[in-house]
Amino acid sequence: MPSPRVQLLLTGNELMTGDIVDSNSAMMAQELKGVGLEVARKVTVADDLSLLVSEINYMASTSDILIINGGLGPTIDDLTAQALAEAIAVGLNEHPDALAHITQWCERRGTELNAPNLKQAMLPKGCKIIANRSGSAVGFSVRHKDCDIYCTPGVPHELKTMLIEQIMPDITQHLPSSLICDVTRLQVFGLGESSLQELIDEKLPNWPVDIELGFRAGMPLLEVKLTTNTTKGLALKPQWQNKITHALGDHLIAEIHGKAKSLAEHLLVNLQQHKLKVTTAESCTGGLIASKLTEISGSSTSFEAGYVTYSNEMKTSMLNVPAELLQQHGAVSEAVVIAMARGALLKSNADLAIAVSGIAGPNGGSEDKPVGTVWLAWGSIDNIKTQCLLLPYKRRQFQQFVTAIGLDLVRRYQQNLTSLPNYIKERAFPS
Amino acid sequence: MPSPRVQLLLTGNELMTGDIVDSNSAMMAQELKGVGLEVARKVTVADDLSLLVSEINYMASTSDILIINGGLGPTIDDLTAQALAEAIAVGLNEHPDALAHITQWCERRGTELNAPNLKQAMLPKGCKIIANRSGSAVGFSVRHKDCDIYCTPGVPHELKTMLIEQIMPDITQHLPSSLICDVTRLQVFGLGESSLQELIDEKLPNWPVDIELGFRAGMPLLEVKLTTNTTKGLALKPQWQNKITHALGDHLIAEIHGKAKSLAEHLLVNLQQHKLKVTTAESCTGGLIASKLTEISGSSTSFEAGYVTYSNEMKTSMLNVPAELLQQHGAVSEAVVIAMARGALLKSNADLAIAVSGIAGPNGGSEDKPVGTVWLAWGSIDNIKTQCLLLPYKRRQFQQFVTAIGLDLVRRYQQNLTSLPNYIKERAFPS
Repeated sequence: MPSPRVQLLLTGNELMTGDIVDSNSAMMAQELKGVGLEVARKVTVADDLSLLVSEINYMASTSDILIINGGLGPTIDDLTAQALAEAIAVGLNEHPDALAHITQWCERRGTELNAPNLKQAMLPKGCKIIANRSGSAVGFSVRHKDCDIYCTPGVPHELKTMLIEQIMPDITQHLPSSLICDVTRLQVFGLGESSLQELIDEKLPNWPVDIELGFRAGMPLLEVKLTTNTTKGLALKPQWQNKITHALGDHLIAEIHGKAKSLAEHLLVNLQQHKLKVTTAESCTGGLIASKLTEISGSSTSFEAGYVTYSNEMKTSMLNVPAELLQQHGAVSEAVVIAMARGALLKSNADLAIAVSGIAGPNGGSEDKPVGTVWLAWGSIDNIKTQCLLLPYKRRQFQQFVTAIGLDLVRRYQQNLTSLPNYIKERAFPS
Repeated sequence: MPSPRVQLLLTGNELMTGDIVDSNSAMMAQELKGVGLEVARKVTVADDLSLLVSEINYMASTSDILIINGGLGPTIDDLTAQALAEAIAVGLNEHPDALAHITQWCERRGTELNAPNLKQAMLPKGCKIIANRSGSAVGFSVRHKDCDIYCTPGVPHELKTMLIEQIMPDITQHLPSSLICDVTRLQVFGLGESSLQELIDEKLPNWPVDIELGFRAGMPLLEVKLTTNTTKGLALKPQWQNKITHALGDHLIAEIHGKAKSLAEHLLVNLQQHKLKVTTAESCTGGLIASKLTEISGSSTSFEAGYVTYSNEMKTSMLNVPAELLQQHGAVSEAVVIAMARGALLKSNADLAIAVSGIAGPNGGSEDKPVGTVWLAWGSIDNIKTQCLLLPYKRRQFQQFVTAIGLDLVRRYQQNLTSLPNYIKERAFPS
């Protein structure tokens, strides 16, 4: 049996005008690839009824699976339900399950069910509902011309949840098992894509063709993917996964099952296991490290206090950093980050601290301390480590990368990983 | 004369697998929009010769302008020239200008001209060359079935240079000046998409067809777009823009020119103009408000200190919130957020503060204070305002929304906007 032919139809004026970049189709393609399916063709059109109807008709007749994305909202330019109804020549019906969903959604928000909301319950006759856990728009599916058509919302996180929890299981249920491929995902931090490629070329030159090796660059985490769907590949897999695990060393954070954990989550899990608390003393990251920790449910067991000391004066008044130190060494200095970490530990009674002070740019750099310079201090009151790095990123990326490094350094400290990770070696400043 | 119909054809296996997100088509759409042209339809296919040939044929017969992007490289999977030659039924020819370009390109790099490079000079007979200033692949264009077909490289900066310097001038040369369209973008906060649609249906039922009204939902900001390219629309525009501005009231944050500003940016601009400083006292948002402020370059003029007081003990030790208040009213209470705001103002010497304490969930809710409850306090030391809201969002979205509301409330306070915005009315708790 040949692999089912999959097509994607994306709708939205904002996609056509270039006001937003479409990342939904890449996400769908990745999920489909995970079960061995390839997207054959993808069409994007504006919110135009006649265009949508003719695309649906043509695509349904040339696909086994068609995923339509967008156009499920409450406004008049959301036309997917109407277009699908016309394409498959049925009427629109008020769907009781969809109505119940929207009614509940409004109730939870304490808002009245209004006419635009009601429109979201008008769906093609005979379609099946796909629940939406977080948004007002339900998805729906229908079989037409031997094609399974799934209609999904344009909001990325709503689409993702729906896809993973409902559509992918529905699709795979009908797939022959020979198509299902075996995928292992490894989460890596501290190695760039080209360093990683180089590492593999050097240490594992005979990588077997039966195991496809893929990288997915994230900021700041990287994902390495081992995919196989041959018997030979499956047999070779354990041995080669072992080899790459060894080659990655402590840059390998974890094997990913389901949703990847963030660096903050990995740190929190460790802290909770050892009943330890962490505190943050932030200058250049301005609260981002604390925010990444508190993003996680249950973080209060391991995080009580964070200090955003953006000015010199506040470093002194909030964290007792001596004014002389600031004057003598400047805010971006080893002495100051040590004093910040000490101050935060003493004031908060936490066991571990991370302190950062740097120049996020675009202004504020000097010859000695160019934009991108950052001092980090981390550890416990009796053992504070420090490092200066020079990071070649723009302001927000700089803040995100410093945050990631800070979280990772505390985790490494707590786990007694003494070797220096690659990013420290590469970005050490002055080097 | 009707507006020319424009379509885009994108090719590349990496676009189909989701390994890269396509930003080229958004860039092309933006450039085209600048001269009043809309992209009617966009198709993406893998590097597959027969698929490419049939798409080119169909798209050329249904467009006035077709831009093909990708597939001009030296490797065997780069098939655009061959596909175009087949589609228009001519042969491939070594093109002397293309050969000269590639020869020079190799010389500049000190590399030998090899067979894969030579392939890049084999182009459809009769096509015109589009020079590439930085890459090895020349672009080329041809007129077929009354359609101008432009073939462009997939490397974003090569595409952009080629588009701006050569293709756009070529396209506009043939355009009637009446086509250039007029776009106004309005940034709105505090109204959901369906409330907004309802507001417009109610207050502006006779909205003219000549002005297209579009919405773009963001979290938490919403964009309303007024587009027209008719003489009548242009004449009506000032009057109707005025009407919608009036209807939106103080939910209208700003008219957008270029890149939209964040709520934190709007607040900072106001603070900088009045030489005021703001401080943050955060429990449930855990540093996110401070982080949004410090994301902006130059924020240090108006932000010196932020307090992330996640535990009760730290609310007392960092912000002098009396322990009795916490015991009597609980951390999520009016008395406590007032004390947090006061504490932050006194400790930081800032002029304005925002303090938040709430239950982000998924755990920690009670009957009196369910998950989603948040108390906010904001203002200056002699005039602190408070509000309790119940927000129906999951943890991270809850934190993001509380952050947005907090930033907006301080801006409103500073601008003396006394009326309550819609989200306060809708989400007030207990209501």
